[in-house]
Amino acid sequence: MRTQVAIVGGGPAGLLLSQLLHRQGIDSVVLESRDRDYVEHRQRAGMLEQGTTDVLRDSGVGERLDREGLVHHGLELRFGGAGHRIPLTDLTGRTVTVYAQTEIVKDLVACRLADGGDIRFEAEVLEIDPSAPSVTYRHEGAVHTLACDYVAGCDGFHGVSRPAVPGLRTFSRDYPFAWLGVLADVPPSTEELIYAHHERGFALHSLRSPKVSRLYLQVTPDEDLDAWPDDRIWTELAARFATDDGWELREGPITDKAITPMRSFVAEPMRHDRLFLAGDAAHIVPPTGAKGLNLAVSDVTVLANALAERYASGSESLLDAYSATCLARVWRAEHFSYWMTTLLHADPAADDFTRRLQRSHLDYVASSQAAATSLAENYVGLPL
Amino acid sequence: MRTQVAIVGGGPAGLLLSQLLHRQGIDSVVLESRDRDYVEHRQRAGMLEQGTTDVLRDSGVGERLDREGLVHHGLELRFGGAGHRIPLTDLTGRTVTVYAQTEIVKDLVACRLADGGDIRFEAEVLEIDPSAPSVTYRHEGAVHTLACDYVAGCDGFHGVSRPAVPGLRTFSRDYPFAWLGVLADVPPSTEELIYAHHERGFALHSLRSPKVSRLYLQVTPDEDLDAWPDDRIWTELAARFATDDGWELREGPITDKAITPMRSFVAEPMRHDRLFLAGDAAHIVPPTGAKGLNLAVSDVTVLANALAERYASGSESLLDAYSATCLARVWRAEHFSYWMTTLLHADPAADDFTRRLQRSHLDYVASSQAAATSLAENYVGLPL
Repeated sequence: MRTQVAIVGGGPAGLLLSQLLHRQGIDSVVLESRDRDYVEHRQRAGMLEQGTTDVLRDSGVGERLDREGLVHHGLELRFGGAGHRIPLTDLTGRTVTVYAQTEIVKDLVACRLADGGDIRFEAEVLEIDPSAPSVTYRHEGAVHTLACDYVAGCDGFHGVSRPAVPGLRTFSRDYPFAWLGVLADVPPSTEELIYAHHERGFALHSLRSPKVSRLYLQVTPDEDLDAWPDDRIWTELAARFATDDGWELREGPITDKAITPMRSFVAEPMRHDRLFLAGDAAHIVPPTGAKGLNLAVSDVTVLANALAERYASGSESLLDAYSATCLARVWRAEHFSYWMTTLLHADPAADDFTRRLQRSHLDYVASSQAAATSLAENYVGLPL
Repeated sequence: MRTQVAIVGGGPAGLLLSQLLHRQGIDSVVLESRDRDYVEHRQRAGMLEQGTTDVLRDSGVGERLDREGLVHHGLELRFGGAGHRIPLTDLTGRTVTVYAQTEIVKDLVACRLADGGDIRFEAEVLEIDPSAPSVTYRHEGAVHTLACDYVAGCDGFHGVSRPAVPGLRTFSRDYPFAWLGVLADVPPSTEELIYAHHERGFALHSLRSPKVSRLYLQVTPDEDLDAWPDDRIWTELAARFATDDGWELREGPITDKAITPMRSFVAEPMRHDRLFLAGDAAHIVPPTGAKGLNLAVSDVTVLANALAERYASGSESLLDAYSATCLARVWRAEHFSYWMTTLLHADPAADDFTRRLQRSHLDYVASSQAAATSLAENYVGLPL
């Protein structure tokens, strides 16, 4: 069995890569360890840079995104009992779109299957040979080897692709906080996202749809979810979002709750021989900057273009540049995510000097057009 | 003996306050513990915000500043073997001026004495009573008490004014580096300041005059000056300023060398009863952002305006707002100074992740107009 590009992992990175390659006439096989239902219901991020929506639309999977996605032109920083709007579009000419990752996955799966694409669910990858190259996997009880020209490792942080790269250099940071995220069946209390800094901790009011709110609370990394019954969550959210003019948070039934640790991670380089890492397989960002999914999209866009050049002209120049091209953007996103995280969270270990600096920094971002533009241009995404 | 405003400290803050009050018809006495020659030859900062030169000019001491000051329209960030110009004036419409603090002090002393101003050198302040209010000091062997309406504490970080404020809250940060600063009799190798980040440490090429260069090297806080003979200093400077295209550093006789620790410090509030703290007496910044002297000038400008209102109308509203007005600017400058320091120095304790973030941050400031504008607007000074 043989394909041009073996794609390990059927999350948004792997599926989009398969779609982008298909549009270039390049064959691929997607090997996903989970079943389709699981993949289509994982709750993940949902804030898309304009460049990400452009890629999805250009690759033919933008129809439902355009219909259901919520286009945003600003966000709110809230601290000191007041809100401060960052007018993203006024400052950058660009927008962001709220559309859940899980919906993108559904759209991509449907599109690939309709086009006769080859996605193998419940295919457990056992070994990647970056030089043969080939991928060995177990599917329906049998072990298969998929020969290919290239392997794309899109199987996330805990996948098998990254360990297949010898001599990786890794960089990481663990933060002294985590996010308790909830989905609630209640219309959002805001039209734009609210990033709240409070001495009790960070809170984020995000959106999922006109009837579903997505809310987050900063908690400690070792927090016990059982210690957070719904009423405690609503009380704490209300305290952190409170304003001097009496803003009110709508409450409703919580349908999902989970705690996510916050970590920064980068592996260098993102390529070994014929194996290319993309997305979470190569790097993790804390969620504050909403960059994880967008980085995965930019990685596979760079990779698809490089493979297209290779098959069209024989030139490997873009493939050779892949790791450095991606890493420049990755480190920018890492820095921005670190910056947003540090700006907005309450670090229990921070001394009084650091707390005062943080408050001055927030005041500055809320009052300086240059500083607000810097936040905005990173948030909407720097050009690919 | 009595005056309207007793000014403790005859550095630039105290002398300028005396001058500003004089222009408003308010009497003051300046008490300075050192002799005139010492005060006029202390080597300190020399980068003036446009707002600072405006205040000096408007107060009648701008004549030599306008003739000898070097107006700058940009600065260079140098890292990765290349320079990246930050066009301060293009980005902000404002300039900065290189004119040494020691020259400002000479100009102010000369002007005050020519106008019959009362500056008492070698006057050691023994006690400040913020409520009487009065200042007790020893001069030429005798102890005197100066009664006054208000006391201005302009006697620097090690002065007696700050300890006279009960219940101060203080905030501080010591950095794991210091600056080895030299004055050299050699024309500057650059027309604009060069802030260099190198893995061996930070270096700064500043200027003093067309024939005198001011250069700095990051060293450890416990560095022994004897371990730095001149040839080692020049070799190290050359290594840190080196570029891929062979930039050359001019060398010359070193006439002064000293090591300065780097510290951030803020005391709150900046007022107790009739005593008002200004400049280094209330706050210290690391020198990277060139903010120390400029903050002192903005403090005494705010104070002079508040006292002028008090004497003109009887209203104490600006005096009551003094501490909060100054502290907003102080914390902005503290944050900017911390930011510049962290951006440019090599922290020996930094992990690899932090080093990569730092490099991405430098690349970003050098490539984003928004980020460069943010640096520039802080460097030239936000509006008073």
